[in-house]
Amino acid sequence: MKVRVRAHSENATKTVVKARNFQLIIDEPTEMGGTNEGATPVEYVLGAFSGCLNVMAHLIAKEMDITLRGIKIDISGTLNPARLYGQSYDERAGFKEISVVLKPDTDADEATLKKWANAIEDRCPVSDNLQHTTPVSISIK
Amino acid sequence: MKVRVRAHSENATKTVVKARNFQLIIDEPTEMGGTNEGATPVEYVLGAFSGCLNVMAHLIAKEMDITLRGIKIDISGTLNPARLYGQSYDERAGFKEISVVLKPDTDADEATLKKWANAIEDRCPVSDNLQHTTPVSISIK
Repeated sequence: MKVRVRAHSENATKTVVKARNFQLIIDEPTEMGGTNEGATPVEYVLGAFSGCLNVMAHLIAKEMDITLRGIKIDISGTLNPARLYGQSYDERAGFKEISVVLKPDTDADEATLKKWANAIEDRCPVSDNLQHTTPVSISIK
Repeated sequence: MKVRVRAHSENATKTVVKARNFQLIIDEPTEMGGTNEGATPVEYVLGAFSGCLNVMAHLIAKEMDITLRGIKIDISGTLNPARLYGQSYDERAGFKEISVVLKPDTDADEATLKKWANAIEDRCPVSDNLQHTTPVSISIK
Protein backbone atom coordinates (compact mmCIF):
# COMPACT_ATOMS: atom_id res chain seq x y z
CA MET A 1 0.00 0.00 0.00
CA LYS A 2 1.45 3.36 -1.07
CA VAL A 3 0.63 6.57 0.80
CA ARG A 4 1.48 9.92 -0.75
CA VAL A 5 1.27 13.61 0.05
CA ARG A 6 2.34 16.70 -1.89
CA ALA A 7 3.20 19.91 -0.09
CA HIS A 8 4.33 23.42 -0.89
CA SER A 9 5.62 26.30 1.19
CA GLU A 10 3.37 29.30 1.43
CA ASN A 11 6.07 31.05 3.40
CA ALA A 12 9.12 30.06 5.47
CA THR A 13 6.98 28.34 8.14
CA LYS A 14 3.55 27.72 6.59
CA THR A 15 3.08 24.53 4.60
CA VAL A 16 0.02 23.52 2.62
CA VAL A 17 -0.30 19.74 2.26
CA LYS A 18 -2.57 17.85 -0.13
CA ALA A 19 -3.47 14.28 0.83
CA ARG A 20 -6.03 12.99 -1.68
CA ASN A 21 -8.84 15.58 -1.52
CA PHE A 22 -7.81 16.84 1.93
CA GLN A 23 -5.72 19.89 2.75
CA LEU A 24 -3.62 20.30 5.88
CA ILE A 25 -2.24 23.65 7.04
CA ILE A 26 0.93 23.46 9.12
CA ASP A 27 2.70 26.47 10.61
CA GLU A 28 4.77 27.72 13.53
CA PRO A 29 3.54 30.05 16.32
CA THR A 30 4.42 33.75 16.10
CA GLU A 31 6.92 33.39 18.97
CA MET A 32 8.82 30.83 16.86
CA GLY A 33 8.90 33.23 13.89
CA GLY A 34 5.85 31.73 12.22
CA THR A 35 2.53 32.99 10.89
CA ASN A 36 0.49 30.77 13.30
CA GLU A 37 -2.09 29.63 10.76
CA GLY A 38 -1.99 25.98 11.79
CA ALA A 39 -0.63 23.48 14.28
CA THR A 40 3.11 22.79 14.24
CA PRO A 41 4.74 19.76 12.57
CA VAL A 42 5.40 18.12 15.94
CA GLU A 43 1.79 18.72 17.05
CA TYR A 44 0.74 17.05 13.79
CA VAL A 45 2.89 14.02 14.65
CA LEU A 46 1.17 13.63 18.03
CA GLY A 47 -2.22 14.24 16.39
CA ALA A 48 -1.51 11.53 13.79
CA PHE A 49 -0.57 9.18 16.62
CA SER A 50 -3.87 9.86 18.44
CA GLY A 51 -5.83 9.23 15.22
CA CYS A 52 -4.08 5.92 14.67
CA LEU A 53 -4.64 4.86 18.29
CA ASN A 54 -8.37 5.64 18.00
CA VAL A 55 -8.75 3.44 14.90
CA MET A 56 -6.79 0.59 16.49
CA ALA A 57 -8.62 0.97 19.85
CA HIS A 58 -11.98 0.42 18.17
CA LEU A 59 -10.80 -2.30 15.76
CA ILE A 60 -9.21 -4.37 18.53
CA ALA A 61 -12.10 -3.76 20.97
CA LYS A 62 -14.41 -5.24 18.35
CA GLU A 63 -12.15 -8.28 17.88
CA MET A 64 -12.02 -8.80 21.67
CA ASP A 65 -15.77 -8.26 22.18
CA ILE A 66 -15.14 -5.19 24.32
CA THR A 67 -17.90 -2.58 24.26
CA LEU A 68 -16.07 0.69 23.63
CA ARG A 69 -18.44 3.66 23.78
CA GLY A 70 -15.68 6.14 22.93
CA ILE A 71 -12.16 7.11 23.85
CA LYS A 72 -10.20 10.20 24.84
CA ILE A 73 -6.49 10.27 24.16
CA ASP A 74 -3.93 12.67 25.66
CA ILE A 75 -0.44 12.66 24.17
CA SER A 76 2.56 14.70 25.17
CA GLY A 77 6.20 14.67 24.21
CA THR A 78 9.33 16.53 25.23
CA LEU A 79 11.98 17.88 22.90
CA ASN A 80 14.91 20.23 23.01
CA PRO A 81 14.86 22.69 20.08
CA ALA A 82 18.62 23.44 20.38
CA ARG A 83 19.58 21.14 17.48
CA LEU A 84 16.76 22.47 15.29
CA TYR A 85 18.24 25.97 15.73
CA GLY A 86 21.80 24.70 15.22
CA GLN A 87 22.80 25.90 18.70
CA SER A 88 23.94 22.52 20.01
CA TYR A 89 24.27 18.97 18.64
CA ASP A 90 24.42 17.31 22.08
CA GLU A 91 20.79 16.17 22.03
CA ARG A 92 18.57 14.67 19.37
CA ALA A 93 16.31 16.95 17.28
CA GLY A 94 13.01 15.16 17.86
CA PHE A 95 10.90 13.98 20.77
CA LYS A 96 13.00 12.35 23.48
CA GLU A 97 10.00 10.49 24.79
CA ILE A 98 6.26 10.38 24.14
CA SER A 99 3.59 9.67 26.76
CA VAL A 100 0.12 8.48 25.85
CA VAL A 101 -2.89 8.27 28.17
CA LEU A 102 -5.83 6.26 26.84
CA LYS A 103 -9.16 7.04 28.51
CA PRO A 104 -11.60 4.46 27.15
CA ASP A 105 -15.31 4.65 27.98
CA THR A 106 -15.84 0.96 28.69
CA ASP A 107 -16.76 -1.53 31.42
CA ALA A 108 -14.00 -4.01 30.51
CA ASP A 109 -11.75 -5.12 33.39
CA GLU A 110 -8.14 -4.07 33.87
CA ALA A 111 -6.55 -7.31 32.64
CA THR A 112 -8.62 -7.22 29.44
CA LEU A 113 -7.73 -3.57 28.85
CA LYS A 114 -4.04 -4.34 29.35
CA LYS A 115 -4.19 -6.96 26.56
CA TRP A 116 -6.19 -4.53 24.43
CA ALA A 117 -3.60 -1.74 24.91
CA ASN A 118 -0.71 -4.10 24.10
CA ALA A 119 -2.35 -5.14 20.83
CA ILE A 120 -3.06 -1.48 19.94
CA GLU A 121 0.57 -0.58 20.53
CA ASP A 122 1.85 -3.52 18.47
CA ARG A 123 -0.45 -3.07 15.48
CA CYS A 124 -0.71 0.74 15.19
CA PRO A 125 1.38 1.91 12.19
CA VAL A 126 2.21 5.31 13.72
CA SER A 127 3.28 3.69 17.01
CA ASP A 128 5.60 1.41 15.03
CA ASN A 129 7.14 4.27 13.04
CA LEU A 130 7.76 6.31 16.19
CA GLN A 131 9.16 3.45 18.28
CA HIS A 132 11.31 1.79 15.61
CA THR A 133 13.73 2.97 12.93
CA THR A 134 12.48 3.64 9.40
CA PRO A 135 14.71 4.25 6.38
CA VAL A 136 14.15 7.70 4.86
CA SER A 137 15.65 8.74 1.53
CA ILE A 138 15.79 12.44 0.67
CA SER A 139 16.56 13.57 -2.86
CA ILE A 140 16.67 16.99 -4.51
CA LYS A 141 15.03 17.69 -7.84
CA MET B 1 9.91 22.03 25.55
CA LYS B 2 6.68 20.14 26.05
CA VAL B 3 4.23 19.53 23.20
CA ARG B 4 0.73 18.32 23.93
CA VAL B 5 -2.44 17.32 22.11
CA ARG B 6 -5.82 16.09 23.34
CA ALA B 7 -8.03 13.95 21.15
CA HIS B 8 -11.38 12.23 21.27
CA SER B 9 -13.11 9.71 19.05
CA GLU B 10 -16.15 10.95 17.22
CA ASN B 11 -16.68 7.45 15.91
CA ALA B 12 -14.57 4.30 15.40
CA THR B 13 -12.36 5.97 12.76
CA LYS B 14 -12.86 9.74 13.11
CA THR B 15 -10.67 11.56 15.62
CA VAL B 16 -10.90 15.21 16.60
CA VAL B 17 -7.58 16.58 17.86
CA LYS B 18 -7.00 19.83 19.73
CA ALA B 19 -3.52 21.31 19.56
CA ARG B 20 -3.59 24.72 21.27
CA ASN B 21 -6.36 26.60 19.41
CA PHE B 22 -6.16 24.36 16.33
CA GLN B 23 -8.37 21.42 15.49
CA LEU B 24 -7.33 18.48 13.30
CA ILE B 25 -9.81 16.01 11.82
CA ILE B 26 -8.43 12.55 11.13
CA ASP B 27 -10.42 9.73 9.57
CA GLU B 28 -10.24 6.67 7.33
CA PRO B 29 -11.59 6.41 3.76
CA THR B 30 -14.95 4.71 3.21
CA GLU B 31 -13.23 1.68 1.63
CA MET B 32 -11.31 1.19 4.90
CA GLY B 33 -14.56 1.32 6.90
CA GLY B 34 -14.25 5.01 7.76
CA THR B 35 -16.37 8.11 7.42
CA ASN B 36 -13.80 9.89 5.20
CA GLU B 37 -14.02 13.29 6.87
CA GLY B 38 -10.27 13.84 7.01
CA ALA B 39 -6.88 12.54 5.96
CA THR B 40 -5.69 9.28 7.51
CA PRO B 41 -3.23 9.02 10.42
CA VAL B 42 -0.42 7.89 8.09
CA GLU B 43 -1.14 10.76 5.68
CA TYR B 44 -0.90 13.08 8.70
CA VAL B 45 2.53 11.63 9.52
CA LEU B 46 3.81 12.38 6.01
CA GLY B 47 2.15 15.81 6.13
CA ALA B 48 3.85 16.58 9.46
CA PHE B 49 7.17 15.53 7.91
CA SER B 50 6.68 17.89 4.94
CA GLY B 51 5.82 20.76 7.30
CA CYS B 52 8.96 20.16 9.33
CA LEU B 53 11.13 19.94 6.21
CA ASN B 54 9.73 23.26 4.95
CA VAL B 55 10.62 25.06 8.19
CA MET B 56 14.11 23.54 8.25
CA ALA B 57 14.66 24.18 4.52
CA HIS B 58 14.06 27.90 4.99
CA LEU B 59 15.92 28.18 8.32
CA ILE B 60 19.05 26.49 6.98
CA ALA B 61 18.91 28.29 3.61
CA LYS B 62 19.00 31.56 5.55
CA GLU B 63 21.99 30.39 7.62
CA MET B 64 23.82 29.33 4.43
CA ASP B 65 22.93 32.52 2.52
CA ILE B 66 20.95 30.54 -0.05
CA THR B 67 18.08 32.42 -1.68
CA LEU B 68 15.11 30.07 -1.40
CA ARG B 69 12.06 31.46 -3.19
CA GLY B 70 9.90 28.51 -2.17
CA ILE B 71 9.86 24.74 -2.04
CA LYS B 72 7.65 21.84 -3.10
CA ILE B 73 7.91 18.59 -1.21
CA ASP B 74 6.60 15.19 -2.34
CA ILE B 75 6.61 12.39 0.23
CA SER B 76 5.55 8.80 -0.19
CA GLY B 77 5.79 5.72 1.96
CA THR B 78 4.89 2.06 1.62
CA LEU B 79 3.22 -0.08 4.24
CA ASN B 80 1.56 -3.45 4.52
CA PRO B 81 -1.76 -3.19 6.42
CA ALA B 82 -1.78 -6.95 7.26
CA ARG B 83 -0.53 -6.43 10.82
CA LEU B 84 -2.96 -3.54 11.44
CA TYR B 85 -5.80 -5.96 10.56
CA GLY B 86 -4.26 -8.77 12.62
CA GLN B 87 -3.99 -10.97 9.53
CA SER B 88 -0.24 -11.52 9.71
CA TYR B 89 2.59 -10.51 12.04
CA ASP B 90 5.37 -11.19 9.51
CA GLU B 91 5.86 -7.54 8.60
CA ARG B 92 5.96 -4.35 10.62
CA ALA B 93 2.79 -2.27 11.04
CA GLY B 94 4.13 1.08 9.87
CA PHE B 95 5.92 2.53 6.88
CA LYS B 96 8.70 0.24 5.64
CA GLU B 97 10.43 3.14 3.93
CA ILE B 98 9.73 6.80 3.26
CA SER B 99 10.89 8.72 0.16
CA VAL B 100 11.15 12.48 0.10
CA VAL B 101 11.70 14.65 -2.96
CA LEU B 102 12.64 18.27 -2.24
CA LYS B 103 12.01 20.68 -5.12
CA PRO B 104 13.55 23.99 -4.04
CA ASP B 105 13.10 27.13 -6.14
CA THR B 106 16.68 28.38 -5.92
CA ASP B 107 19.80 29.12 -7.97
CA ALA B 108 22.19 27.45 -5.50
CA ASP B 109 24.56 24.86 -6.98
CA GLU B 110 24.32 21.11 -6.44
CA ALA B 111 27.12 20.83 -3.88
CA THR B 112 25.60 23.63 -1.76
CA LEU B 113 22.16 22.02 -1.94
CA LYS B 114 23.61 18.66 -0.88
CA LYS B 115 25.03 20.27 2.28
CA TRP B 116 21.73 22.06 2.81
CA ALA B 117 19.72 18.83 2.53
CA ASN B 118 22.06 16.99 4.91
CA ALA B 119 21.61 19.69 7.55
CA ILE B 120 17.81 19.65 7.07
CA GLU B 121 17.73 15.89 7.56
CA ASP B 122 19.92 16.06 10.68
CA ARG B 123 18.10 18.91 12.42
CA CYS B 124 14.45 18.24 11.52
CA PRO B 125 12.63 16.85 14.60
CA VAL B 126 10.16 14.77 12.57
CA SER B 127 12.96 13.29 10.46
CA ASP B 128 14.73 12.29 13.67
CA ASN B 129 11.62 10.68 15.20
CA LEU B 130 10.94 8.69 12.03
CA GLN B 131 14.51 7.55 11.45
CA HIS B 132 15.45 6.73 15.05
CA THR B 133 13.80 4.96 17.96
CA THR B 134 11.76 6.94 20.49
CA PRO B 135 10.47 5.56 23.80
CA VAL B 136 6.67 5.61 24.00
CA SER B 137 4.76 4.89 27.21
CA ILE B 138 1.07 4.05 26.98
CA SER B 139 -1.09 4.04 30.10
CA ILE B 140 -4.82 3.52 30.64
CA LYS B 141 -6.89 5.79 32.84
